Formats: sequence, structure tokens, C-alpha cells
Amino acid sequence: MKKKKEVTIYDLAKELNFSPSTISRALNNHKSIGKKTTKEIQKVAAKMGYRPNSIAASLRSNKSKTIGIMISRINRPFVSSLISGVEDAARKADHNVIISQSNDKYENEVKNAKAMYDSRIGGLIVSLAMETNNTDHFQQFADNNIPIVFVDRVPRDFNSYRVIIDNYAAGYRATKHLIDQGCKRIAHFAGAQHVNVYNLRKKGYLDALLENGIEVDENLLVDLETMSFEEGREAMKMLLELDFPPDGIFSSNDTAAVSAILCAKERGVRIPEELAIIGFNDDPISSIVEPSLSTVSHPAMKMGEISTQRILEHSEDNLGSSISEITMLDTEIIVRNSSRRRKI
Amino acid sequence: MKKKKEVTIYDLAKELNFSPSTISRALNNHKSIGKKTTKEIQKVAAKMGYRPNSIAASLRSNKSKTIGIMISRINRPFVSSLISGVEDAARKADHNVIISQSNDKYENEVKNAKAMYDSRIGGLIVSLAMETNNTDHFQQFADNNIPIVFVDRVPRDFNSYRVIIDNYAAGYRATKHLIDQGCKRIAHFAGAQHVNVYNLRKKGYLDALLENGIEVDENLLVDLETMSFEEGREAMKMLLELDFPPDGIFSSNDTAAVSAILCAKERGVRIPEELAIIGFNDDPISSIVEPSLSTVSHPAMKMGEISTQRILEHSEDNLGSSISEITMLDTEIIVRNSSRRRKI
Repeated sequence: MKKKKEVTIYDLAKELNFSPSTISRALNNHKSIGKKTTKEIQKVAAKMGYRPNSIAASLRSNKSKTIGIMISRINRPFVSSLISGVEDAARKADHNVIISQSNDKYENEVKNAKAMYDSRIGGLIVSLAMETNNTDHFQQFADNNIPIVFVDRVPRDFNSYRVIIDNYAAGYRATKHLIDQGCKRIAHFAGAQHVNVYNLRKKGYLDALLENGIEVDENLLVDLETMSFEEGREAMKMLLELDFPPDGIFSSNDTAAVSAILCAKERGVRIPEELAIIGFNDDPISSIVEPSLSTVSHPAMKMGEISTQRILEHSEDNLGSSISEITMLDTEIIVRNSSRRRKI
Repeated sequence: MKKKKEVTIYDLAKELNFSPSTISRALNNHKSIGKKTTKEIQKVAAKMGYRPNSIAASLRSNKSKTIGIMISRINRPFVSSLISGVEDAARKADHNVIISQSNDKYENEVKNAKAMYDSRIGGLIVSLAMETNNTDHFQQFADNNIPIVFVDRVPRDFNSYRVIIDNYAAGYRATKHLIDQGCKRIAHFAGAQHVNVYNLRKKGYLDALLENGIEVDENLLVDLETMSFEEGREAMKMLLELDFPPDGIFSSNDTAAVSAILCAKERGVRIPEELAIIGFNDDPISSIVEPSLSTVSHPAMKMGEISTQRILEHSEDNLGSSISEITMLDTEIIVRNSSRRRKI
């Protein structure tokens, strides 16, 4: 016997032209929704035969209090701060967190997703592996109404929550800072371009040059794969061997920037006088290296906290899995000795 | 109806005075056990009515292919290397790894243990939180024949696998190195003394002084709680204000040692001429700080690999949960500029 199809908040959302989240809140008499709207939604819901808090509520009470987080590499300071943010928010809500790392490999990420799914988590937070170009392995969560939040490194086309920083603006500002310090030949260490964060930082770099009347020199655009210490050193060596070496570098991470500083110093290049350098992430190492590294700070803890909040709110509001919502946070340029040529 | 008690490999081990592991291997015709021994064990097993590979084998085939690892803080380089070692060995055996961190809090560790248990892991690897003094929360694993390996920070009294380094010898050698460099007043940054690793490093320090005719000065023994950057700085300040400040420091980790270097430099102390410093862990930061930090390197990857091997072998051999086996690995002194006063 075929059951009559249950009316969902999505049907109501479609009918009323509100977001599913607004529908859900109105049905739960949430104070964030105006009285008039709440009344209208509840009226239509009753008419269409929506049954609030029945099956969904029973599902909810069985929900796992464990949140899974899948990240690239736990040994990146950005990632460990992100995880701390996730954990802090989770603990306040009496949830636990389990972690798995992909080491930036797609294959590991697929296996980890399976392990997370088998661990019966109540929600998943993901920052994609460097290699990942396909997100089918996350469909099992969506299909089972387990909320997913992508954070920092996010897919282009997966319907879900996303928590990111404004990478374009950050790339633009970091480059503009070097221009303001008098740099004319600014190199860029770019990460893998299918990864949103590196792609957008590079776009910001290019636009900052163009808008300030500096021609883009392809020789100064260095594509790195993993932005490792070793890659940073190789890139620096290569740039110093050019006929016209750069007088500034914007590196898409601190790791490669620090190794560029060490390599340039070994070769007698004066920093920042002959070469000004700015990195990205504000890793602890950036204030230890000499000269200390200018960088872009990333609200990693905050991103983690918001990601957890999305999971908790989603479960609280009994939302389905097709919510798509982007939260974009701002970054901050931190000027240290590696790029400070002029008083700012 | 009460069933007749099944003969286990422990009964055989007791009867034959071999380890359960040897018994199991002999019953499985493992090549590491001599033919004569194998024959003897199999004979007695048959006589006592041991039924190999029956219930145990069926349990085994249902075993989870996920290994859980519970650690203190993922942002410590030692810990991330340890996890890499665990993961490498696990992946080779087609197992996955999930991680949880306690942030060195006992309460978090207890909750994480529950989350791990609920995630149906097939084995658990644990490095204890700084606060942990009680290990009851691990009993649920032992009771359900889920193998546990404690690694690095291990409990005194829990019957299980343990993978550790020789902390006593490392502390002794680090201190002896400073003595060999001509230091006479050697301070020690000691971690929480109920934690095996810090306790043993301090014992090594004390014995090195005593055996080399140097009296222990209580003013130079600084007890730290978490060995953080901030604590290292405070400890250094305090030591520099003494009437007779130290001419050497052995710090039980690199974090506190690096912050001591930075603090001493700010105050015009020449390193290593006036103050020689050695840390512990060989964190990446130790080769970036200037002067570069001498340290003790820890085979973290190796410890992780061995821990995973213990879990896999345990499952393979159908061993019960009461195995106790300690693996102790050696460390290496790495001499850099922060302590190099004499040619070695």
C-alpha cells in the first residue's frame, strides 16, 4: 500500500515563496519571524495538511550528538584553529567531535567520508582535499538528511552550507599593500587553481596589479601544487635567477613565504628593502621568522564556530538537507617587518 | 543452561608458560614460531579441547575497519606526525582513522572515549590528556575486546599495549650535553609530574646533574603546567631575575624553549655564550628560530606506525584484551646553535 506523500517544509516553501528555514521557524513560532508571516505560513501549512514535529521530531531525538569534521591536514595552524572553533561550539551544546584528515588526497577523502558515515555522525563539516574535484562521496550524507557544512575550501556546486572568507578581497588587499610599499614587480605564489581559495586570491592579485597600472609579467606568476616549504624554496630560487627578479612577493600561504624569506636571506637579498614579502594565514611561524612575515589573518576559530552553529541550527529547526547558505567572513592584513618599507 | 567454559588461548598460555601471542601464532602456523614449539602447542590445545577460529573468527570478520586515535592537541607537531604514522600503517591495511582531541582536559577525554566507542571502532590508540589521572573511561573498550594502545603519554596501571620513548635516557642525555658544553647552572622546565613523559625527563635531568657532581638548585627547577609559549616566557623572566641566573636550560618541550630564547634575546642575553638552551621534540619551529634550537628528536611517525601494527596484529591473532606489552623507542640529541659552544 502506497502512503500518501507527506507534506514537507519544502512544499510549503515552494507554495509560499519563502525559504525552508523561514517556514520551519514560523511553524515553530520562532521570534525571528514576524507575527503576520508566521500566521500566514501556519494557515497554509494547516490547509495543505502539514504535520509539524511528527516523524522529524522522533528522528531528531535519535540524532547523534557527534559532529564529524573532515579536513586536509591537521598540522596546518589554520586547520587546528578551525577545529578548535568547531569543538568549542560543539562542547557548549554537549556534542562531541571526531576528525579525519585527507592529507589532501581525494582517495583518502572518499574513504574517510565512508568511515564518518559509518560512525553515525549527526552532522559533517568539510574542508576539501587539495585534489578533490568531485563531491559524489558527500551525497550519502545529503540523502540521509545529515547536514553538511563546507568550510574554507568548498565545492562550486554542492547544495549545502558554506562558510568562507572573502579570498578575492584578501588577495587584492595583500597585493595593494605591496604596491603601497613601492613594489613594482610583484610575484605571486599561487596554489592549485581548481581550489576556490587559491583561485580567488590569484584573481585579487591580478586585479590589484591591473587597477594600479602594473602590467602582469607571466614570469612572476608561479604556480605551486601544494604550497609546501620545499616548493616555496624552489620558487624563490627560480625567481632570483630571472634577469629582472621581483621586488615583492604575495604568497598564498605562510609556509611558502617563510621558506622564500630563508632562501632569499641565504643569497644575500635584503628583506624588505630589496624584496618585500607577504604571506597568508598568520601561522605562528610568521612572527618567529626574521624578519617577521607580513600576512593575512584568517578568522579560523570563528569559521569553525559558525560551521558548528549551522549544524546545530539545522538539526534544531528540522530542516531538510537541501539548504544552501553562504557565510562570508572578512580578513585582516597584518603588516610586519618583511614588507614594512614605509610608515603606514 | 550453563555452557561449558570455552578453552581460550590464555588458558593455553598459562598451561604451557608461553605468551598468548605465541600461542595464537602457533595455532595459526605462523612462521615466526619454531616447528617444535608449534607442534607442542597444537598438541596441548587439542588435548584441552581448544577450538581454533570459531567464534573468534566470526567476530573478526565483523570487525570495524576504523581505528580511533585520541590525542591531546592536534596542533603539536609531535602529535601530527604520530597521527601520520598511524594513518600510513592503517591505509596500507585498508583501515580508516578517526581522531579526537582532548585539548588536555580530562572531561573532554571521557566524552571523546564515549563518542569513539559509539562510533564502533575496531581499535583505539590513545595519548593521554595532561589532566588525566584516571583511566576508567577506557575500560569499556577492554571489556568488549577492542584493543587499546597507549602511546607516548601512557597510564601507569592499565593492562594494554604501550608504545613509548625512553624519556629518562633522553632527559639524561640532553642535560649531559649541556654539561659537556661547559654549563654549570642548568635550569629545567619541567611539565606536569603525574605525566610519565615529563616525570621521567626530569628524573633524567636530576641524575645527570648528580652523576656529574653538580648540586641541584631548587631555584633552577621550574614546574610548568602546560609547557605553553606563555609559560616559557614567564619562566625565563623569573630565571633572569635570580641573583645567580642559569647558564643552561633543558626544557621538556620546544615551545617553552623557543619562547625562552626570544625572551632572553630581548633582554640582551647572548645565546649560547651566556645561556645554552636545549628543547625537546624537534618541532619545525626549532630550526626556524634564531639561534636555531638544539633539541631531542622523537620518532613520532614510527610510534604511530607501531601503534597501528599492534592493533592490526591483535585483531589478526584473535588475542583477548588483557595483553600488556611495552615497546620502547630511542631518541636522538640534535645539536644546533642554541647550545653549541664547543666543537663536538
